Amino acid sequence: MIENPITRLFKINHPIIQGGMIWHSGWKLASAVSLHGGLGLLGAGSMYPDVFLEHVLKMKKACDEGENSVSWGVNIPLLYPNIEDLIDISIREGVKIVFTSAGNPAQYTSRLKAEGITVVHVVSSTKFAMKAEAAGVDAVVAEGFEAGGHNGREETTTLSLIPAVCDAVKIPVITAGGIATGRQMFAAMSLGADAVQIGSAFAATQESSGHPSWKEKITSMQEGGTALTLKELAPVRLVKNKLYEEFVGIYKAGGSVEDLKEHLGRGRAKAGMFLGDLEEGELEIGQASNYVKEILSVETLMHNILQEYEITRVRMVDKR
Amino acid sequence: MIENPITRLFKINHPIIQGGMIWHSGWKLASAVSLHGGLGLLGAGSMYPDVFLEHVLKMKKACDEGENSVSWGVNIPLLYPNIEDLIDISIREGVKIVFTSAGNPAQYTSRLKAEGITVVHVVSSTKFAMKAEAAGVDAVVAEGFEAGGHNGREETTTLSLIPAVCDAVKIPVITAGGIATGRQMFAAMSLGADAVQIGSAFAATQESSGHPSWKEKITSMQEGGTALTLKELAPVRLVKNKLYEEFVGIYKAGGSVEDLKEHLGRGRAKAGMFLGDLEEGELEIGQASNYVKEILSVETLMHNILQEYEITRVRMVDKR
Repeated sequence: MIENPITRLFKINHPIIQGGMIWHSGWKLASAVSLHGGLGLLGAGSMYPDVFLEHVLKMKKACDEGENSVSWGVNIPLLYPNIEDLIDISIREGVKIVFTSAGNPAQYTSRLKAEGITVVHVVSSTKFAMKAEAAGVDAVVAEGFEAGGHNGREETTTLSLIPAVCDAVKIPVITAGGIATGRQMFAAMSLGADAVQIGSAFAATQESSGHPSWKEKITSMQEGGTALTLKELAPVRLVKNKLYEEFVGIYKAGGSVEDLKEHLGRGRAKAGMFLGDLEEGELEIGQASNYVKEILSVETLMHNILQEYEITRVRMVDKR
Repeated sequence: MIENPITRLFKINHPIIQGGMIWHSGWKLASAVSLHGGLGLLGAGSMYPDVFLEHVLKMKKACDEGENSVSWGVNIPLLYPNIEDLIDISIREGVKIVFTSAGNPAQYTSRLKAEGITVVHVVSSTKFAMKAEAAGVDAVVAEGFEAGGHNGREETTTLSLIPAVCDAVKIPVITAGGIATGRQMFAAMSLGADAVQIGSAFAATQESSGHPSWKEKITSMQEGGTALTLKELAPVRLVKNKLYEEFVGIYKAGGSVEDLKEHLGRGRAKAGMFLGDLEEGELEIGQASNYVKEILSVETLMHNILQEYEITRVRMVDKR
């Protein structure tokens, strides 16, 4: 158990937050993380409002019962088409923690805060961290270039980003990008963050709703197996599969932004990560995926990370 | 003082290695680092053989005198046109530590080792670290995407790279890329490395041979002020100055590799970093440059880094 501003803010035992990833983060994954002492987040970005409501109700049943209730939250991408529906459901159902991403935090923070909700915004730069603080959020997730999925334009890595963010804001900082092991968690926290947000490793757990073939694919990832691409649309880190190579082909042929958009089409992320089309689908995963070797239960994964964190801490105590 | 495989290998007090950067790392910088307990490296990549010999002789005078002699080395890029001359001078003058980079370590390692020289090779991936170990080097520098200057094609960040390299090789690992402060040094070492190699922060010291205007420019760098570019030639991290924007223009216009080469021409790195042409010159610097706020002496810089390292260590001792 680590006590710090983030564990106090969320009332959690371990400063581990499970990223609210699209197509992976249903109530099974999020409740398992929360019940094992971290903070589980529903990934609303891939849910229609009725599906989101269903998962919120299941989370409440799993996590809010009686004296042993545990904290949990939701991740809402601010660019979601029917975002008002998600915000309304969250408020109506008494969600206590909302992470927002991919948009302007000034938009909904004050409304959520007025309802007593703890609000956290995901950023990729110190400038955006300061804007989020000014918008009134309770904490920020600062995410480096190595993270999977959508990512910042400046390509600042976690090691380069976190100290500057921690120096620039007074609110607590959660770090994300490149963290799948206890060593990486310890390193990331020594930069000044009060917690880590982990994506790739949770995407491959038994409780994740990712397709079984996709989870197997994650456990076979090699170093250098991902790339940040589609920078002209919105930068996204993907597995270098057939679809990715087709994008490379479009770039080489001097294709336009329209050509990229048309080739991407719709539903590629669902096809890849939820339905298991590993060649034609969009497979979002971080550089840390090459540290994910097995499909573990959330309990075992968190145990392993915390154990390696502690081994690292003891090793570094004497490194003076 | 930290005792570990790297400080024992090089017989140094502090596990801080000054990168052998072109146009910055003459005998003044390298000897200052070595005399203050780190490992200074001459950057041979920007020296004609006669200039290199002159610097080697000055290093010997500064560092090898009597009982108070300290360790130092040279960095030789293996793609250097007259590399035989540099290797011959190093052997003849009794250089004891040679870092090689940008090429195949199988080429010269056995010859240098036969002369009793300690050999270290710079890599950007676990695969190349294993190849370097197989070639017989004594240690590797594993350098992440955030590093300045020439860089790997896979874009693996320091946080993502170091644990895998440390798991894959038996020889000691030095980490580079994104390290300019004590917090970053502590984080990088907690990933498993036995030392850090620091470039950007040393490039801006008083003893660096970089142009004064360029050093001022380094101290004014902002987050996001660099980019990895020219990936079709050899990926290099540069300041986003006028020259960089011209490359962006060539890319947007669908220019060829030949167009890029022709526009780059020759002598751009010297023009920028040594002669101070901040717009037309090639300015190689890492993402960590935004942590470099002043032109310090090597002594003060190393003191600051080691002090912040120790503060971080004490802070993290209790984070369980």
